[in-house]
Amino acid sequence: MKAEIITIGDEILIGQIVDTNSAFIAKALNKIGVSVYQITSVQDDKVHILNAFENAERNVDIVIITGGLGPTKDDITKTTLAHYFEDTLVYDDAVLANIKYLWKNFVKQPLLQVNIDQSLVLSKATALMNKSGSAPGMWIEKNNTVFISLPGVPYEMKGLMNEEVLPRISEKFDCPFILHKTLLTYGLGESVIAERIKDWEAALPSSIKLAYLPNLGRVRLRLSSTGFDEAVISAAVEAQVTALLPLINDIFVGFEEQSSIEQIIGNQLVKLGKTLAIAESCTGGKIAENITAYPGASTYFKGGMVAYSTASKINILKVDEDLIEKHSVVSSEVAEAMAENVKRVFDSDYGIATTGNAGPSKGDSDEAVGTVVIAIATPKGVYSQKFNFGTQRLRVVQKAVTMAFTLFQKEIFKKC
Amino acid sequence: MKAEIITIGDEILIGQIVDTNSAFIAKALNKIGVSVYQITSVQDDKVHILNAFENAERNVDIVIITGGLGPTKDDITKTTLAHYFEDTLVYDDAVLANIKYLWKNFVKQPLLQVNIDQSLVLSKATALMNKSGSAPGMWIEKNNTVFISLPGVPYEMKGLMNEEVLPRISEKFDCPFILHKTLLTYGLGESVIAERIKDWEAALPSSIKLAYLPNLGRVRLRLSSTGFDEAVISAAVEAQVTALLPLINDIFVGFEEQSSIEQIIGNQLVKLGKTLAIAESCTGGKIAENITAYPGASTYFKGGMVAYSTASKINILKVDEDLIEKHSVVSSEVAEAMAENVKRVFDSDYGIATTGNAGPSKGDSDEAVGTVVIAIATPKGVYSQKFNFGTQRLRVVQKAVTMAFTLFQKEIFKKC
Repeated sequence: MKAEIITIGDEILIGQIVDTNSAFIAKALNKIGVSVYQITSVQDDKVHILNAFENAERNVDIVIITGGLGPTKDDITKTTLAHYFEDTLVYDDAVLANIKYLWKNFVKQPLLQVNIDQSLVLSKATALMNKSGSAPGMWIEKNNTVFISLPGVPYEMKGLMNEEVLPRISEKFDCPFILHKTLLTYGLGESVIAERIKDWEAALPSSIKLAYLPNLGRVRLRLSSTGFDEAVISAAVEAQVTALLPLINDIFVGFEEQSSIEQIIGNQLVKLGKTLAIAESCTGGKIAENITAYPGASTYFKGGMVAYSTASKINILKVDEDLIEKHSVVSSEVAEAMAENVKRVFDSDYGIATTGNAGPSKGDSDEAVGTVVIAIATPKGVYSQKFNFGTQRLRVVQKAVTMAFTLFQKEIFKKC
Repeated sequence: MKAEIITIGDEILIGQIVDTNSAFIAKALNKIGVSVYQITSVQDDKVHILNAFENAERNVDIVIITGGLGPTKDDITKTTLAHYFEDTLVYDDAVLANIKYLWKNFVKQPLLQVNIDQSLVLSKATALMNKSGSAPGMWIEKNNTVFISLPGVPYEMKGLMNEEVLPRISEKFDCPFILHKTLLTYGLGESVIAERIKDWEAALPSSIKLAYLPNLGRVRLRLSSTGFDEAVISAAVEAQVTALLPLINDIFVGFEEQSSIEQIIGNQLVKLGKTLAIAESCTGGKIAENITAYPGASTYFKGGMVAYSTASKINILKVDEDLIEKHSVVSSEVAEAMAENVKRVFDSDYGIATTGNAGPSKGDSDEAVGTVVIAIATPKGVYSQKFNFGTQRLRVVQKAVTMAFTLFQKEIFKKC
């Protein structure tokens, strides 16, 4: 079962927005056994959109189209679909009732003709109810291909995917089971890993595909397999993982699909009944933000401070001014004091602290741009490590965040 | 001058990563006058990649390919390119010297044959030096089309784009000037805006294209135009902006290309010589993170606190326990106290505070999920506003961040 995702909108092709919809849709389709053959982003141009529809129809069983369903003149997906299917647009009563309900209770602005016209759908289509907005989705079958049109606004698209599209696809098609299992590693480059596991890789059955995904000091190893018997697929992949793990024991940090590293950390803290506080300088709140991205974080996250300036490290985090004077603000001593003090101030079991020069200028320290010190305070003591993450500001910050999570994960998973 | 971006990699098509490279490349190409006709993401599959090359060659002048250049077996872009161009791979001495230099000074791991093989390039190609990694870029001309192959790792791709690809394209092609001007609005839906500006829109010259980009309570209005005389294009777009602004005076908050809202805020604070501190509850550090994403933030950002738990609001931010008891933790009173206290603690001129229930559970307050109070403390006083941003956790947080910036921007741009 193959799908193509077609995203429509000039904003994607001029780089004004990053297309996050496609990744969401692709992941959701994979989970129900549909593999994505291609993702195509095209301009708000009728001829171009028609070409994309034609190409997709030739190659896949399911075409998911996002964007171009708004009420304004630049939105042409619906009329283009009508042209492609040689169909006309008709008002859908249920959709119109939904629009009237939304306008009365939430939008609270006058209902204009263009809003009413949002309830127009192709006569051959099944309208898919959009609970968060005025643009309905549509499900249209042509020969052996299903075309599904969805709004481009991410939360509207997600609601429609989860509530309407995925259940209908699962019902209509007999989909196989697609399994991805991704091992997160830290500390070695992909070529060294490949060399180390080459015998294992050479012996992989052809039904299991291996991919190396390197980025910022981490390499992810993904095993993928597809088949109709979930138990057989799972057992085959698990057997390979079991054979692989001893070979990468020193660099393996966890499985991606099980959860993200922030979730792994959160679950472990809950299990241990321990809490965390964070003092951030160069990472500017990004560690705390990642930690709080998950519901339930308040049970183990006591709080964080962004002590950006040297003065705030002294005044708020109570880092000794002499310590900064003596060792510089980017030093193990200061990082460790920050971690210990934030732990004390928030009365938590663990503290994480970062201090560094993200660049481009050196700030209040003589350390080279890219230098970051990460400290971990534990119930038993405190320690730190110094890194250099290069000269590109956002990359330095991202690497520091990743490394902070990696170090902290190692800490809380230590054998006692 | 038209381009197509082809991104190669199963990780995109299974939704494991969001393709951020394409937006970067599209934006960079637009700046030098190249418009992007299509973005196509394809699997690590030889036949599929060859098809994508063929289609692109038919439609555009420039094909930019990313991904699939690594040293491991799943990387097949280079051999597929050799097949497409009926060419062979040859070692490039300069690339090999660069790899040896990187391995000796940074990687510090044994140089394997697969690393040496990274210096193989098509004999017909010009190798483009990658200063951050072992995979070189390639520039290959065929009839009237240029194919450019780049690594998929974002910072390597960006380095090659900026240092090699963009200068070469500008030199080879006579590109027009592409202008986008985007007006940020807040407070009205796109259909109401369209109704309000319909006479202006109807009178737009055909050389200027208007797009409505709605998301999370904001609508962006983008004007785009292309031509060879920059002065003429700019004047024409400016004239339309001048005519448009009086119609949307009450909802207009700034221009996007000039800078993001965080940068507009930063620049204004620098201009005023004022400073800012932030106390965040439900936004979990995201406001501080956005503020510190820009170099130079330390001149106006004094620091932030993530007071996630009720206890930390009392202990760290010194919010009166009775006040929380009496009004609940999600209340105007508590938000205003947080904003004033964080301003006092960090000795800043302004304070921003958020408190709310992002969901899915209600936390320590009886307020409905989605309720967020945002408070602004100024040199003259403090005020707050209460919102409900719905029931989806991440959306609630994003809307709260957006609204905090919008309110704060209004504050610091107030006429005195």
